[in-house]
Amino acid sequence: MKTLIIVAHPQLDESVTQQFFYESTRSLVDVTWQVTGEQVDIAKMRQLLLEHDRIIWQFPLYWYSAPALLKQWIDEVLGDTFALAPEYVLAGKQLGLVVTTATSAADFGAGRSEHFTMSEILRPFEAIATKLKMHYLPPFVVHQFAYQTDKQHQRLLIKYQQYLTLTDFSFAARSQWLSERLGNLGQRLDGKDRLVVQAVQERLQDNRDELADLNWTISMMKQEEDNQDG
Amino acid sequence: MKTLIIVAHPQLDESVTQQFFYESTRSLVDVTWQVTGEQVDIAKMRQLLLEHDRIIWQFPLYWYSAPALLKQWIDEVLGDTFALAPEYVLAGKQLGLVVTTATSAADFGAGRSEHFTMSEILRPFEAIATKLKMHYLPPFVVHQFAYQTDKQHQRLLIKYQQYLTLTDFSFAARSQWLSERLGNLGQRLDGKDRLVVQAVQERLQDNRDELADLNWTISMMKQEEDNQDG
Repeated sequence: MKTLIIVAHPQLDESVTQQFFYESTRSLVDVTWQVTGEQVDIAKMRQLLLEHDRIIWQFPLYWYSAPALLKQWIDEVLGDTFALAPEYVLAGKQLGLVVTTATSAADFGAGRSEHFTMSEILRPFEAIATKLKMHYLPPFVVHQFAYQTDKQHQRLLIKYQQYLTLTDFSFAARSQWLSERLGNLGQRLDGKDRLVVQAVQERLQDNRDELADLNWTISMMKQEEDNQDG
Repeated sequence: MKTLIIVAHPQLDESVTQQFFYESTRSLVDVTWQVTGEQVDIAKMRQLLLEHDRIIWQFPLYWYSAPALLKQWIDEVLGDTFALAPEYVLAGKQLGLVVTTATSAADFGAGRSEHFTMSEILRPFEAIATKLKMHYLPPFVVHQFAYQTDKQHQRLLIKYQQYLTLTDFSFAARSQWLSERLGNLGQRLDGKDRLVVQAVQERLQDNRDELADLNWTISMMKQEEDNQDG
């Protein structure tokens, strides 16, 4: 799976958060980092869209929407007919959003200071995905990056990399993803350290097996219930 | 009441709809028509905002939002602190939207080709109004202007002028507004024509009086019910 990130930030060089994201992607293969500025190369952007499976629009939330820079990209690249009927050239691809905001997660929603949920605020993007017959991914929202601890940043890095690269976001897929990365790490270690990594990997595999067993048991129980009801 | 219209349209000169709107405002006093382009005079725009009571953002719907031109205006003019706490300099003013779309009204909503209602699509603007403690007016949406008949255009002209100038949108206020315009017309006519206009004016006044009577009766009935319940 190939992922395209369109980064739209009016003060990109000054953004610690975007720098963090950029560093997080450098070790990833099949991830294209594309910054957009005042001039948009429409033909090139359309080609990039066609070549990737997951499209990510990454931006700071300005006045309950993307900065004008991204809207310009959308207006110009999507245009009047590209990706619409009858060909729908982006159909089946995924659309994700990576949204940063200086406002706390607790402030969004009815009766709170931002009044609306992030789902409501980002609805126009969901409408675009739906119109183009793309799959709209749950938005990846980062609240108050600057106030987060180092540990939170480490967890954010993993979640962000997973958002870009995991083919699905199930518990099993996330566990498998971590296990693979541990495997890569283990190969670069010697002796006792390597044994520790292998032990953790085995434990993760046990967890996944147990989870699969439980899911199977539950599905069997449901099936029996259905049979009894019928 | 003073009304400011911020017009954002990337092809303004080619837009028949915007030309129609412009002509509709020429006879109106206390209405300021302000076109926005790539350069935004932030200080001047803020001054205009402060000097007017009703702010209208007027734009064609592009990809379920305003064109980048308007988003740029919003990002730059509202900025980071203007109109926010603690002064909230726009508090109590009204925010209206005049939105044009080539899509039919019947296509908006769940299960339809646009999937979402116009209220949902325009939610980020409602969020801005709410954040700034402004009154969000019901958006004025014009569907498929080019397909409308002359008669529909005439009705649209009246409704548009009312959206810009009426202090409230009640039936009585709209009737009063029409009556005043008839009065102006009557003064420019002679003889029989003038009598006709006066007769229509009287009829409108009768309607308003009857409406007021009915509303009064209903409120009395409710009050009696409340007394009985208590």
